[in-house]
Amino acid sequence: MADIPAKAEIGVTTGPIRGSKKIHVGPLNVAMREIHLDPSSGEPPLRVYDTSGPYTDPTARIDIMAGLPQIRRNWIEARGDVEAYDGREIRPEDNGQLGPDRSGGVPQFPRTGLNRPLRAKPGMNVSQMHYARRGIITPEMEYVATRENLGREMLKDYVRDGESFGAAIPDYVTPEFVRDEVARGRAIIPNNINHPESEPMAIGRNFLVKINANIGNSAVASNVASEVDKLVWSIRWGADTVMDLSTGRNIHDTREWIIRNSPVPIGTVPIYQALEKVGGIAEELTWEIFRDTLIEQAEQGVDYFTIHAGVRLPYIPLTAKRVTGIVSRGGSIMAKWCLAHHKESFLYERFDEITEIMKAYDIAYSLGDGLRPGAIADANDEAQFAELYTLGELTKRAWAQDVQVMIEGPGHVPMHKIKQNMDKQLEACGEAPFYTLGPLTTDIAPGYDHITSGIGAAMIGWYGTAMLCYVTPKEHLGLPDRDDVKVGVVTYKLAAHAADLAKGHPAAKMRDDALSRARFEFRWRDQFNLSLDPDTAESYHDQTLPAEGAKTAHFCSMCGPKFCSMKITQEVREFAAKQNAPVETFVAAEDAEAGMQQMSEKFREKGGEVYLPAE
Amino acid sequence: MADIPAKAEIGVTTGPIRGSKKIHVGPLNVAMREIHLDPSSGEPPLRVYDTSGPYTDPTARIDIMAGLPQIRRNWIEARGDVEAYDGREIRPEDNGQLGPDRSGGVPQFPRTGLNRPLRAKPGMNVSQMHYARRGIITPEMEYVATRENLGREMLKDYVRDGESFGAAIPDYVTPEFVRDEVARGRAIIPNNINHPESEPMAIGRNFLVKINANIGNSAVASNVASEVDKLVWSIRWGADTVMDLSTGRNIHDTREWIIRNSPVPIGTVPIYQALEKVGGIAEELTWEIFRDTLIEQAEQGVDYFTIHAGVRLPYIPLTAKRVTGIVSRGGSIMAKWCLAHHKESFLYERFDEITEIMKAYDIAYSLGDGLRPGAIADANDEAQFAELYTLGELTKRAWAQDVQVMIEGPGHVPMHKIKQNMDKQLEACGEAPFYTLGPLTTDIAPGYDHITSGIGAAMIGWYGTAMLCYVTPKEHLGLPDRDDVKVGVVTYKLAAHAADLAKGHPAAKMRDDALSRARFEFRWRDQFNLSLDPDTAESYHDQTLPAEGAKTAHFCSMCGPKFCSMKITQEVREFAAKQNAPVETFVAAEDAEAGMQQMSEKFREKGGEVYLPAE
Repeated sequence: MADIPAKAEIGVTTGPIRGSKKIHVGPLNVAMREIHLDPSSGEPPLRVYDTSGPYTDPTARIDIMAGLPQIRRNWIEARGDVEAYDGREIRPEDNGQLGPDRSGGVPQFPRTGLNRPLRAKPGMNVSQMHYARRGIITPEMEYVATRENLGREMLKDYVRDGESFGAAIPDYVTPEFVRDEVARGRAIIPNNINHPESEPMAIGRNFLVKINANIGNSAVASNVASEVDKLVWSIRWGADTVMDLSTGRNIHDTREWIIRNSPVPIGTVPIYQALEKVGGIAEELTWEIFRDTLIEQAEQGVDYFTIHAGVRLPYIPLTAKRVTGIVSRGGSIMAKWCLAHHKESFLYERFDEITEIMKAYDIAYSLGDGLRPGAIADANDEAQFAELYTLGELTKRAWAQDVQVMIEGPGHVPMHKIKQNMDKQLEACGEAPFYTLGPLTTDIAPGYDHITSGIGAAMIGWYGTAMLCYVTPKEHLGLPDRDDVKVGVVTYKLAAHAADLAKGHPAAKMRDDALSRARFEFRWRDQFNLSLDPDTAESYHDQTLPAEGAKTAHFCSMCGPKFCSMKITQEVREFAAKQNAPVETFVAAEDAEAGMQQMSEKFREKGGEVYLPAE
Repeated sequence: MADIPAKAEIGVTTGPIRGSKKIHVGPLNVAMREIHLDPSSGEPPLRVYDTSGPYTDPTARIDIMAGLPQIRRNWIEARGDVEAYDGREIRPEDNGQLGPDRSGGVPQFPRTGLNRPLRAKPGMNVSQMHYARRGIITPEMEYVATRENLGREMLKDYVRDGESFGAAIPDYVTPEFVRDEVARGRAIIPNNINHPESEPMAIGRNFLVKINANIGNSAVASNVASEVDKLVWSIRWGADTVMDLSTGRNIHDTREWIIRNSPVPIGTVPIYQALEKVGGIAEELTWEIFRDTLIEQAEQGVDYFTIHAGVRLPYIPLTAKRVTGIVSRGGSIMAKWCLAHHKESFLYERFDEITEIMKAYDIAYSLGDGLRPGAIADANDEAQFAELYTLGELTKRAWAQDVQVMIEGPGHVPMHKIKQNMDKQLEACGEAPFYTLGPLTTDIAPGYDHITSGIGAAMIGWYGTAMLCYVTPKEHLGLPDRDDVKVGVVTYKLAAHAADLAKGHPAAKMRDDALSRARFEFRWRDQFNLSLDPDTAESYHDQTLPAEGAKTAHFCSMCGPKFCSMKITQEVREFAAKQNAPVETFVAAEDAEAGMQQMSEKFREKGGEVYLPAE
């Protein structure tokens, strides 16, 4: 144990998010966050969705060396359909072609509880879809129901305001609704039985729009400690799932540290690791090596696998005239394999065998879009849609074994071609959740691709995409650092929220309204605390008006004390209040010319509250 | 002249934008920028729209003390309809309640050429709309036509790809087309005859989508030198017009420095200055003071005025139940005035008199949306649309005098309510150009409001908005600094371009395609130079791979040398090329299962170019 590092070597950010408190709701202790408002507001605390896990709970003892508590362990074991077994032995090549690199001071995760992984007993299927289809409401489904509701119970006289393009968003989420959505394949709850640390969450068109953050070592840069830090950092700001896209050394160990310390589902692209095992030579990939990698990662607890089984040999020439060919890494690896062997993809051919593995651990498919467009010029082309329809075919094959599926989507798509992607996906894939990267709405803004893609993400989220894969400012240019990860997450969180608003998700607007009331009433601290990133909001305010007094000032730095429109509006209200006339005394707009004099007299005579609603 | 500062006191950024060269096209020397590509690309330089004026021209002599060359002076005088006259005398209160503040070292602009302003001769109308309606094609219209075409003449076999929602975008922009659009009121060319330094540009649904940047002193912070710097900085990155929203001291002088050094149209909100003249007390505003301010600014050369003439007395109570009341500064000032006097707004009552002034200088109206929603909760409400229809009525009144008009729009609007804004504006205002602030698609992301609004801006630009008013990351929190201005401009530039792409603007896609080809071919420098912000793109690349060699490396930092999908795609092409089989030997996707063996044989037998198109 001499090489186990001091805790400081893997440092993560802990402590509450500014202005809010971790709470646990109901018998299942569903984690949420409450934002407390200034007493002058007269408003109760606002509950918001919380992905940050125990790291923001001051009462939790965080020990990266031990991993998180296994909150789902009992639920899994209580179902009586799993068995522990001696897992696959870890080999040096699991950590990359050169074996593990311990120079960074990060050793193997000191595994204690999970050295014997779980899998389904022979003949059993432990997927949430399987339970759902048998009518069983699992604790995972109950957890999701509580988690999704948030402020919905506070809504009174609620009028739905939104355009959901045929989604079936309920006013209130019941466990039965969750079960039904999972049973139909319209939602997934990705949680490998070997990742009992995870807090259940759902990805589906009729739930809140989710976001994913990508992290991971590359062959060029990065290290284990910084990836664990990025995991915790990304969920602090709202990442609902995290994909570990590591490709370099320490690939197995990095993943282990990440999973053991992650309260959110972890996704991977297993072909990346399989390629490492064959020295980076795509032609040398085999089904056996790929299968071995699936088992390795299944035993670690990966919650969803991106599998590029839709990149079929005959589709490859369809990309010949593209401006950027095949830009998906997994897609190009498989394309090379297919051409080299002149054979159909083994992922496609062995799909049902892969599904057998998925159901033994409850791993969800994220069917990869290996032929997604990498440029505006290539959007919505034949190659892309040929693959999409194959993904639809594979969805049905996975569902035949009760295995959960989501579908990955583009890429680079101009605005006028985005909706077609959503419509075709719904049609081809039987409403399986769509999980899109962006899409980027133009190619010309490297350095700002979180924004070019945030535009497309908000739109496709509105149209029905269930989860948005973030893009950071470094996209196309370099590896995201900690700051980039935060900017990417917050950007996507706002895009997802904009989509929820536009879809008319009940209660989504409560946060906007609370923040706008705080803004109007100059409750600066409430305004910061209600925002997606209170630290940045406050620091920006400080840059112009650093004084503490400015936090309660009834003006802001843009206009100064005399020129503030909100202050003037309040003065207008006060002025009008003195006159004491009810609102109705104002004549309707169309009668204005004629009634002006009369109105003026009435106004003075009756007085009235102009800005306070008349009784 | 002792108090004239050394040049260093007003420092601005000059020199070419990285990787590109200023060019001047045609007999009118229309300014454009050419991005030169690596010889290996075999591609000609790409022409892009350029708003940066002489500052990026290494052959230009920049002298902030003298202002820019008056390129339009001869055109204006040649029409024979203007006269120089002794302008209004500048008074201390023109520079704010306390008079000018010279402590910052910035004096009055050393006016030489324009101390006698121009105006229309008695009975004359010098608006571009007036000329257009009389069938006259002005040099300004010719300039615009050349400027808008860019790469259109290079398009061959062009197939329009976009959804323009009823816009009438031509394949090629002729001077006659510009004239016709201006005559119909569907486009404006804002250029005061007293701002002869400006390079003509058009704002209209059938032209490229434009963006505006706001700068200006506030009562709390800012100074003259930094505002001139922000002007030059914002146009460097693509601002098509700039609004000077100054409110504090030096308000007249700041504006003078800005206009004299601006190659783009300058807009203002004259009521801000008028309010300064009455000590910040809205009730004390009078028509006479407002009129005096219009003349003052008209003589300086302001190109468009925001006038909140649609805030009518009877609409004010319609805002009573709003979450954030009236958030427009101009709107709240007028609301207060109306209520205090219980009178209809003098802006509305005197509208035709204002129009008389506008036509004497060719100032365009930007009819202000004083009742725009300031929160998601207030979007698309009765107050907002009541005002919009009044703006439509005023548009027709301005057009009756051949005065150019655009219409300002919201604000805070969730995605599903954006299109209604555009549709109603087109209907109410007879296709006068729409000029929107954002809109912001959620309220919950202060610190990221350039993004929440960039989403809405891209969408409403696609639907038909002609100009997008930028929002910076400091929106709602503080005054934008130089970095914020750049982020705001680039964000809006990408939103405008995404809109152009989606509308199917001819040639818009050329830049995306050029950049994507550069990306695919690992021409890193071309990729940087073709981007909206080459400096940031290169610096982000450097953060992961700083070595000079990495600029020509056939891989990038995300995946490293072994894992690059683009590299693999190229290997796939090379591999396939060796086999030498034409693309057609691949069977269609639907025949794949049956034909696989046969295809494989054919492939080996014939060989074939898979990724290179068959002859």
